[in-house]
Amino acid sequence: METKAFSPSWVARALRELQQLVAIPSISTDPQHVGAVRACADWLARHLQGIGLDRVRVFETPRHPVVYAEKRVSPALPTLLIYGHYDVQPVAPAAAWTVPPFGALIRGERLYGRGASDDKGQFFTHIKALEILLKAGQPLPLNVKLLLEGEEETGSPNLGSFIRQHRQLLRADWAVLSDTNMISAAQPSLTYGLRGSFSAELEVHGPQTELHSGIFGGAVLNPLQALCEMLAHLHDRRGRIAIPGFYEAVRPASVAERAYLRRHATTDAQLLREAQVGQGWGEAGYSLYERTTLRPSLSITGLSGGYQGVGTKSVVPPRASAKLSFRLAAGQDPHVVEQQLRQHLTRITPPQVRATLTAQLHARPYALAPTHPAMRAACRAYAAGFGRAPVLQRSGGTIPVVTLFEEELGIPTVLMGFGLPDDRKHGPDEFLHLPNFWRGIRTSLAFMHEVGRSLRCVNHDPKIIYGNPVS
Amino acid sequence: METKAFSPSWVARALRELQQLVAIPSISTDPQHVGAVRACADWLARHLQGIGLDRVRVFETPRHPVVYAEKRVSPALPTLLIYGHYDVQPVAPAAAWTVPPFGALIRGERLYGRGASDDKGQFFTHIKALEILLKAGQPLPLNVKLLLEGEEETGSPNLGSFIRQHRQLLRADWAVLSDTNMISAAQPSLTYGLRGSFSAELEVHGPQTELHSGIFGGAVLNPLQALCEMLAHLHDRRGRIAIPGFYEAVRPASVAERAYLRRHATTDAQLLREAQVGQGWGEAGYSLYERTTLRPSLSITGLSGGYQGVGTKSVVPPRASAKLSFRLAAGQDPHVVEQQLRQHLTRITPPQVRATLTAQLHARPYALAPTHPAMRAACRAYAAGFGRAPVLQRSGGTIPVVTLFEEELGIPTVLMGFGLPDDRKHGPDEFLHLPNFWRGIRTSLAFMHEVGRSLRCVNHDPKIIYGNPVS
Repeated sequence: METKAFSPSWVARALRELQQLVAIPSISTDPQHVGAVRACADWLARHLQGIGLDRVRVFETPRHPVVYAEKRVSPALPTLLIYGHYDVQPVAPAAAWTVPPFGALIRGERLYGRGASDDKGQFFTHIKALEILLKAGQPLPLNVKLLLEGEEETGSPNLGSFIRQHRQLLRADWAVLSDTNMISAAQPSLTYGLRGSFSAELEVHGPQTELHSGIFGGAVLNPLQALCEMLAHLHDRRGRIAIPGFYEAVRPASVAERAYLRRHATTDAQLLREAQVGQGWGEAGYSLYERTTLRPSLSITGLSGGYQGVGTKSVVPPRASAKLSFRLAAGQDPHVVEQQLRQHLTRITPPQVRATLTAQLHARPYALAPTHPAMRAACRAYAAGFGRAPVLQRSGGTIPVVTLFEEELGIPTVLMGFGLPDDRKHGPDEFLHLPNFWRGIRTSLAFMHEVGRSLRCVNHDPKIIYGNPVS
Repeated sequence: METKAFSPSWVARALRELQQLVAIPSISTDPQHVGAVRACADWLARHLQGIGLDRVRVFETPRHPVVYAEKRVSPALPTLLIYGHYDVQPVAPAAAWTVPPFGALIRGERLYGRGASDDKGQFFTHIKALEILLKAGQPLPLNVKLLLEGEEETGSPNLGSFIRQHRQLLRADWAVLSDTNMISAAQPSLTYGLRGSFSAELEVHGPQTELHSGIFGGAVLNPLQALCEMLAHLHDRRGRIAIPGFYEAVRPASVAERAYLRRHATTDAQLLREAQVGQGWGEAGYSLYERTTLRPSLSITGLSGGYQGVGTKSVVPPRASAKLSFRLAAGQDPHVVEQQLRQHLTRITPPQVRATLTAQLHARPYALAPTHPAMRAACRAYAAGFGRAPVLQRSGGTIPVVTLFEEELGIPTVLMGFGLPDDRKHGPDEFLHLPNFWRGIRTSLAFMHEVGRSLRCVNHDPKIIYGNPVS
């Protein structure tokens, strides 16, 4: 069936459809693109209808819509919930792109465009696999529900309430989500752990109006200086986060897990090559990969204040701000981290300025044991799709929907990633590695057959989700 | 003569002319306003021609033009060079203005507008004083040369070479410049000292492209973090600049000068009120006023990097930048400070990033002893114009042209300021205090008569310029 499915004309059409999808500038963080996000949802709904899914619907949320579709075959069969997000990151800095960000240009094995890998190209593998199954003329081997979100890049502010409102509709046994990386195009891998996240904006308020830095410089505390000095107090000299109590809840990885990852996961040299930097940095006692997965981190993702134009302006500005993004390791709670940060900021804010912190996103860390039947099924599917068993790995990123599915639907999520470490997600010249797109479709097809063959699961055992994954 | 000159119809016309001048958006730092800067130069040239000055000319420079005019009466009389700058600061942040920045609105005693005090309203006092003298029907009591610059707010990049090219044309005995503050509208004051300046842009370069902060956060040094930590190393905990050797060349003020300033200059309470801040900051052992005049300072005037839009973006950006503005005290050399900063940055730049420093402006500190005949003449002129003898003071600002006049023409400059400490130069809602405008015209008139009565000066004695001003 699969060989027949991948006919040249089908391949050409699937590629054209993917280009159409990537060409829609569905930037969810930018209010000017709200129409494009809507257009993308509508395009998807038409497409899902076209391939034969049922109950296709574009659900309204307070901001960007959710696209839903399903194929129910029998209550006796297992149900798979496929999640993807059709919104994309902003393009900025636009000048750094060497291709049009929404041109969906194909060059060699790459399809370039914002969102090509994160996440349009990845979730589209499941849609194309479903199309193949639906056209085969036989009943599907499982029940399928599809949930496509338009707010992932804004922290999914409305997804939690959407899932709570539609618990019955979304009821499933397992979820699958393709929004992570493989180790390399030559080595498939399956992600069993994600870091959590806490992000916030820190503002420092000084004088009520802009002051002349010649007239007042030296006698008035400059909020830009105060902000820099406060931010410098968030890490110690050894690269550790200097917030008291921050590491207390981190659950140490087992010796077996660290040994497994040392053998199979990204090496320091690979990570430096992927990042295109000459030297690593961070917490002593851990490999670069461990620093980005087993250990928490804090990134300043934006800095702003004062005069940013060409040339000079002699000002002490009234305010300065920084965007902070924590990635949290197993055991950490984003709300506890927020409180720890607030207390630390209170201690380190100079008396001449006022600091405010606006929380933006909270997400808990996640892990699923490789002994879980869903993970076993996924491993077999990768072997079928890529001709090679996957390596198990952790990712340093955060996918808040995974903890939502766990908390609201009580189901585990398989992180079936087809992205590559150097495919420039969130950066300029993002691309999708096309061979992975075709292998991803085959892997998704195999996974759906595996799910169909699996027993219908009872409610998952939390020990399996949080057990030591590779002991 | 003066009473007749200030007739109601003349006053009304002078005010209209001043409004026309302030309404021209001659922002020199902004390439989009290059036409407005040119229009301002042309308006001034027409006006100077109209009041009867000779050899009126708009000189080209590589960027914004210089306006020149003169009235030569006799080689036997002293020559006064009047300097002003017709360019203005940018408006940003535009939203903070409560009046149109170029509306030249008059409300009560204030004329509002960008540049109303800095420097259009101030140098226009001399033009109106000249108009009165020229219309009196008698030969002027002195020779006058007028030099109006269009690049002061960009650091006067072309003024030095202009002055060198036109040394003969600009030859004079003394210069006068009105671009400083008086203590208050009730108390005229004469500035005898200025801080020097060194400003530069610091860039920190990290990864070649934007990286995902989830995937790489914790293993790659973030240039935003590196920048903040480097900037935090520029001051110590006691508010002193932490660059080795930085204070070595600072010439301490005498006990007598400090005592005089304590009695007469701005108090801590006044300075806090002018800055509209609750608490002071800075180097221990000095009053707030001393910190801004006798002591050097370092202000971060801009910070930029990463994602600055609404919401979040998970990035480790490739670069981060800060604008730095040093104000230098007596004895300091801006080029030496640049070298000290470069050496310090080399020491504190982490090995994972690369730092570059682009120098923008160098200006030496300046002081003119009150015993200098030009200062004595100015004191008498203030007494005539304001009905009260001026207090002597220092300013924390920098006026690079003063050191240019000293170095290239060998002449001292009288800083005959008519601005007020709270008139919001460089900030939103800048205004000119109109009573000071009329008193300024009277002071300028009196000063020109004083200069005419003074003996023609020989080349100034450097000891008098750099002597202890109030010993």
